[in-house]
Amino acid sequence: MDLSELGTPCLVLDRGKIDENIRRMREHLSGRGPVLRPHAKTAKCIEVIARALDDPSGPVAVSTLKEAEYLFEHSVKDILYAVGIAPTKLERVAALRGSGADVTIVLDSVEMARLVAARGAELGTEFPVLVELDCDGERAGVTPGDPALLEIGRVLDDEPGTELRGVMTYAGVSYQAQAADDTRRVAARERDVAVESAGALRRAGLPCPVVSVGSTPTAWFAGDLSGVTEVRAGVYMFNDLVMAGLGMGEVDDIAVSVLASVIGWQADRGFLITDAGWMALSRDRGTACHVVDQGYGLVCGIDGVPLDDLIVTSTNQEHGIVGSRGGGGVDPGRFPVGSFLRILPSHACATAAMHDRYHVVDCTTEVVDVWQRVNGW
Amino acid sequence: MDLSELGTPCLVLDRGKIDENIRRMREHLSGRGPVLRPHAKTAKCIEVIARALDDPSGPVAVSTLKEAEYLFEHSVKDILYAVGIAPTKLERVAALRGSGADVTIVLDSVEMARLVAARGAELGTEFPVLVELDCDGERAGVTPGDPALLEIGRVLDDEPGTELRGVMTYAGVSYQAQAADDTRRVAARERDVAVESAGALRRAGLPCPVVSVGSTPTAWFAGDLSGVTEVRAGVYMFNDLVMAGLGMGEVDDIAVSVLASVIGWQADRGFLITDAGWMALSRDRGTACHVVDQGYGLVCGIDGVPLDDLIVTSTNQEHGIVGSRGGGGVDPGRFPVGSFLRILPSHACATAAMHDRYHVVDCTTEVVDVWQRVNGW
Repeated sequence: MDLSELGTPCLVLDRGKIDENIRRMREHLSGRGPVLRPHAKTAKCIEVIARALDDPSGPVAVSTLKEAEYLFEHSVKDILYAVGIAPTKLERVAALRGSGADVTIVLDSVEMARLVAARGAELGTEFPVLVELDCDGERAGVTPGDPALLEIGRVLDDEPGTELRGVMTYAGVSYQAQAADDTRRVAARERDVAVESAGALRRAGLPCPVVSVGSTPTAWFAGDLSGVTEVRAGVYMFNDLVMAGLGMGEVDDIAVSVLASVIGWQADRGFLITDAGWMALSRDRGTACHVVDQGYGLVCGIDGVPLDDLIVTSTNQEHGIVGSRGGGGVDPGRFPVGSFLRILPSHACATAAMHDRYHVVDCTTEVVDVWQRVNGW
Repeated sequence: MDLSELGTPCLVLDRGKIDENIRRMREHLSGRGPVLRPHAKTAKCIEVIARALDDPSGPVAVSTLKEAEYLFEHSVKDILYAVGIAPTKLERVAALRGSGADVTIVLDSVEMARLVAARGAELGTEFPVLVELDCDGERAGVTPGDPALLEIGRVLDDEPGTELRGVMTYAGVSYQAQAADDTRRVAARERDVAVESAGALRRAGLPCPVVSVGSTPTAWFAGDLSGVTEVRAGVYMFNDLVMAGLGMGEVDDIAVSVLASVIGWQADRGFLITDAGWMALSRDRGTACHVVDQGYGLVCGIDGVPLDDLIVTSTNQEHGIVGSRGGGGVDPGRFPVGSFLRILPSHACATAAMHDRYHVVDCTTEVVDVWQRVNGW
């Protein structure tokens, strides 16, 4: 089947580009010390994650327990649930552990450490925990130097319902970097915060076998990674316009796109309309803070090759407005109604999340497979 | 089961509020002439849509063919697919029509009218069509006064594969209105464009039985509706912060919310962190252009009552940052880790789209039912 036979909008994934993206990250980190812990949050699909793993049992990071349960059903065992735990989720974590999955959770307060330890004791399990550290002031984590780190560490180490397994941090600010040098600084800070906090725990006589850092940009731009035991990254498998804007590969490396039909024209006003609105693309405007603003996505022909400077300038629920980035208008003759376009996403995680499956191609427009995603929680 | 026993994040729907919102819109339009054609794009759920219908066979509007197929399975027959048609979808429309659904489609160009007519002839069906009109310059539709209207009308009327059933227009600009008077003007323009274009078709000897307008804001603020045969509206069933900002009901009328757990605190910086990020809330920032910016949502206790001026100020994939709109900080003692919050959405269509089901309550925190949504295309 050819892409032109599919209903639109739908999600297209280029298998050849994924394999190349995965090869490049693997090679980039090879021999540098830390293991790569691929993050399932972008792809949410075993066929993709399996390609990123050297060993089918893991390690992986996940953003939902549903991803954890799904990957465990597909033989993955070493799973880090990399979002601060909520008490309401502990029963599912315990059930997974009881079935043989080695699920690690994260938290960043003494209060939560005590809640988890108490629940672990009740459920008869010992939850392995990483203490989350804040390396960029943007989100979660213990601030470097805060004595709470040792207090949390002691609770986790002392209580029978928990096991202190190490520290983790995430430099989300790397997505807003303006240049490679910014990302290098962010990556250095991410590493330093993690390694110094691990040292503080060890000096206090506490165990800290795991020192986990990462995001795709910091994994790519990191200099020194000494003392780090693992690097988490997810979006590198697909890449997107945010990553390209950060210098993490080229637009041509982006493996995921949304297939759309041209449903109308406003030739006087220089735009055309497709059936890929925010329901298909997401509302993510990840490149709005970049030097090159890619709107809601960069427009390609059905072959996946970008068309001049056409971007999706605005979206409604099921309508996408496509215009020229420079405001120069679009020629109706080139894309008559009924034509197919492919839209490269600003943010692959957000765009893919709007769909339940991938239509897989391999560098051509022939659909060679359909892969399901595991959405929800 | 109580809301506090659910895994988070998840979607909560208050049945009592839906019923009241539906009653109010029905009463508002009662006796004014046009019939109400409820739009399924917000709820995507038969249990909700059935409440909005006087007759189980319809009429309804839909934003995807999947909604159309699903509603037809649930006895709805009169269905307007209110997004400009793409050729790749016509086979599914023909199949629905062949099964007994009266599906009407829309288009806005002579080229598309010819494509649809040719395909109708091939498939042995006569597609009923509304010509889309542009009343606000924002999106799709024939510009008022453009001779293309009559040309499209003639193709649809003459060709055996199509039936000219009327005109439709949508004033999407109503979502950006700053005051009720703006919305009244937008509604008047929406009505005038539709009625005048219907007149032009009729003066040319063409049929135009249907004159369809609408959006929730214009349905609510419309003055004169003479000449209009039907009004489409969807979000009124749920309401949201955008609607409240437009004066379409109060915050207390919002029927949908996202249940979240507090997973962490950054007390020094005055914010707390929940497990409802953009994956649960969407990236929609619909109130960003309003007088009161509600961020990614307004924060309530588990009982659904808003908490002072707490809003979701930023989101990551699975993290939501909650702070005070005035920047005044939040008291950790009130919402310790593990507490539950409910987030009222900026844009109900976008937030609900991130979930596959509703946990139904009826003015309390007891879960009385679970209703499924029909997502995708």
